Amino acid sequence: MQQAEQIDDVTEVLDEITSEQWDVILAAMEAEDPQALKTALETVHAADIADILEQLSSDQRDRFVQLYGSEFDGDILSEIDESIREQVIEALPREVVAEAVRELDSDDVVDILEDLEQDGQDFILQSLESDDREAVQSAMSWPEGSAGRLMQSETVTVPEDYTVGETIDFLRAAEWLPAQFYHIILVDLEGRPTGYGTLGRILAARRDVHLTDLSEDSFRTVSATEDEGEVARLFNKYHLISMPVVDEAEKLVGVITIDDAMIVLDEEAEEDLLRLAGVSEESSLSDRIWDTVRGRFVWLFVNLLTAILASIVISMFEEELEAMVALAVLMPIVASMGGNAGTQTMTVAVRALATRELTGQNARRVLSRELMVGTINGLAFGVIMSAVAAFWFGVPMLAAVIAMAMVLTLASAALSGIVLPLLLDRAGIDPALASGPFVTTVTDVVGFFAFLGLASVVLL
Amino acid sequence: MQQAEQIDDVTEVLDEITSEQWDVILAAMEAEDPQALKTALETVHAADIADILEQLSSDQRDRFVQLYGSEFDGDILSEIDESIREQVIEALPREVVAEAVRELDSDDVVDILEDLEQDGQDFILQSLESDDREAVQSAMSWPEGSAGRLMQSETVTVPEDYTVGETIDFLRAAEWLPAQFYHIILVDLEGRPTGYGTLGRILAARRDVHLTDLSEDSFRTVSATEDEGEVARLFNKYHLISMPVVDEAEKLVGVITIDDAMIVLDEEAEEDLLRLAGVSEESSLSDRIWDTVRGRFVWLFVNLLTAILASIVISMFEEELEAMVALAVLMPIVASMGGNAGTQTMTVAVRALATRELTGQNARRVLSRELMVGTINGLAFGVIMSAVAAFWFGVPMLAAVIAMAMVLTLASAALSGIVLPLLLDRAGIDPALASGPFVTTVTDVVGFFAFLGLASVVLL
Repeated sequence: MQQAEQIDDVTEVLDEITSEQWDVILAAMEAEDPQALKTALETVHAADIADILEQLSSDQRDRFVQLYGSEFDGDILSEIDESIREQVIEALPREVVAEAVRELDSDDVVDILEDLEQDGQDFILQSLESDDREAVQSAMSWPEGSAGRLMQSETVTVPEDYTVGETIDFLRAAEWLPAQFYHIILVDLEGRPTGYGTLGRILAARRDVHLTDLSEDSFRTVSATEDEGEVARLFNKYHLISMPVVDEAEKLVGVITIDDAMIVLDEEAEEDLLRLAGVSEESSLSDRIWDTVRGRFVWLFVNLLTAILASIVISMFEEELEAMVALAVLMPIVASMGGNAGTQTMTVAVRALATRELTGQNARRVLSRELMVGTINGLAFGVIMSAVAAFWFGVPMLAAVIAMAMVLTLASAALSGIVLPLLLDRAGIDPALASGPFVTTVTDVVGFFAFLGLASVVLL
Repeated sequence: MQQAEQIDDVTEVLDEITSEQWDVILAAMEAEDPQALKTALETVHAADIADILEQLSSDQRDRFVQLYGSEFDGDILSEIDESIREQVIEALPREVVAEAVRELDSDDVVDILEDLEQDGQDFILQSLESDDREAVQSAMSWPEGSAGRLMQSETVTVPEDYTVGETIDFLRAAEWLPAQFYHIILVDLEGRPTGYGTLGRILAARRDVHLTDLSEDSFRTVSATEDEGEVARLFNKYHLISMPVVDEAEKLVGVITIDDAMIVLDEEAEEDLLRLAGVSEESSLSDRIWDTVRGRFVWLFVNLLTAILASIVISMFEEELEAMVALAVLMPIVASMGGNAGTQTMTVAVRALATRELTGQNARRVLSRELMVGTINGLAFGVIMSAVAAFWFGVPMLAAVIAMAMVLTLASAALSGIVLPLLLDRAGIDPALASGPFVTTVTDVVGFFAFLGLASVVLL
């Protein structure tokens, strides 16, 4: 029994590609043996084949594609990372690509098309049957990153006056059904969705029950122009499994299922994570090296400007630094603590804005809370650092100066960490993308100015 | 028609709580008018009521709970953030809590129990009917954060020799079915799952078709002891909708559905984001202020130690700093650029480790790639900074020194940004939690040492 075996092997299945499998695959590629490669990959999931492709070097990848060639199917194409998809598609024989895309649901074809140049797009569109081509073209007419791009146009609908029996008869008679569907959508005479029933409730109901009586409370539709990130958030918040997509006339144009929403949610989280670290969101390990250099350069350049600004502040105190070199030794500590405290607050704020936990309703309370946290930690580290400074340099007033600077810097870190993301968000700028440099500028400038300025007044 | 109205209001529904609704809610609370509050919240989703509770201040929250009291249901309790759940449960009359938890599936009850003290746990367990109590207690016997805690014990199973007709008859006769189910699980005589069919395929098949013939290729089970984050990753990778959970004897003990996996995936992403920023993962806007202070303090303290280490490096060059104050002005720039470049690489590495894109298979290639990116950007910023330094201070050799320091620092930032997460991961330590301080230490120490050390050799 195949299934029983799968259970026995469950831990291996969960380990995905084992190192033994890797050895067999690499050996097959080394020997240029297409048959051995096919055998090695026979029971491997498309997602894992995509992983293998991503982890190979660019040259190995071309060799893999040549050897595996005609075995490529739509699932593998739609699983591979967009950064290498174009390379794989170009290396494949055109008829293999054509065959592969014909198997896919329209949303997966759209996903592949989005990353191709015009030439590749045209070829794939021509490969599709006319129905599918129309579905894909109509999806492509919605803006990038919209619900219209994410949806599959294949839906399962029945008239809203259908009974359970009529619905089951309709499904049994259907020549074709989508690979995945979880609801039967009810539509009115104009093609507008008016409710949906889960398959579980329909299966469990008597044949004469009307579907309207089984329609779920959770029913809601989304406009095809809605942002896909917003759609993903709604799925997660309201525990939706599928959501009908409508056009301006409120007519049903497709349906988004939770598995696609889950992928978007994961991508959005990755985007925020990388943006906060100053990495452009397209970044992946298989990007071309120059793309990576350029992506990182931009943010480092912005950081350079803020660092120079901080240095200008320092240069205002050259006399003090010459008179007391201990200031030069200690000043990076103040700036570093400020930068880190600012990053903590900013990250919490950016995440809370993304999940809508931080709103106009509670912004003021969150702000005063963060300010208090920053001040308390500023006092704590002020005490610690003044002890360190006194012990190290034996100058009591220096200890007092660094304590005061620490409180001011950590309080300003908290303030800027919450206020700047809020302002950016309100101005329609993604706070994950732009908060970092602003917050660091504030904490650096305040840190150096407070420490050196106080030193100049108190010590010299 | 109720549904048609919902469509008309779709943009408002998607906006969730409007500011008009907020005003009505706050006015009802001000007036201590339970009826007005109930009316205002009549059509509001449980997830939105939970959001309201989270955004209120602690005092307002108590008042809200008092007024809304008996309207609290299980859905609201399971939607509210764990940081305020205990407060809400304590403020509610016990019979309301008892009534609310009785409505919930076992996984939701487990989720609530996990965050309560022993007293609260006992009370809730006593409130459940004996079947549910047993299901919850058995789930609680699995480790925290495991598949066993995430699963619901309510499953829909049929013997593996059932036909479509027998299955439908069984479902129609069933007195009770879970609120959400997407597969019928086939079990053998020992209660071990051997396959599953999607409801869609069952609905569309003739009555005499055997379920084994409809079983999905994607069928896989997971051990109840598997980590929930791993489970979520598998759902996302293999596009699963539900996954049967088995015990050591491979017997079915429950099922995990994609909506719960999606929540875990989102939480894990949040955890990584916050950990990288040095915020402990339990952090939320409604945490008690002292918990927040303490959580932030720990990481800032670790950062203080690395900052002091960097200052010790600086203090080795006190003579040089006294002789040339420009060094003190410029040195934070080198450290800042190193820290930021290190954070970029580290964040990409930590994310790639979490998604299994970075493996033993490609670690060496990724490392040499990052080293090249770091060196190229080091050269670029070396050129830029030497121009800035020459223009600012008019000392050509100082320009040469900062250029060299920049290359060394950015290359070491790339190296440490990839090597340290890899080492931590291999040592079984979460790289998101611990990489930051290590990487900053390396970039600070290298940055200051390279800049001041080169200056001491070349300039003085």
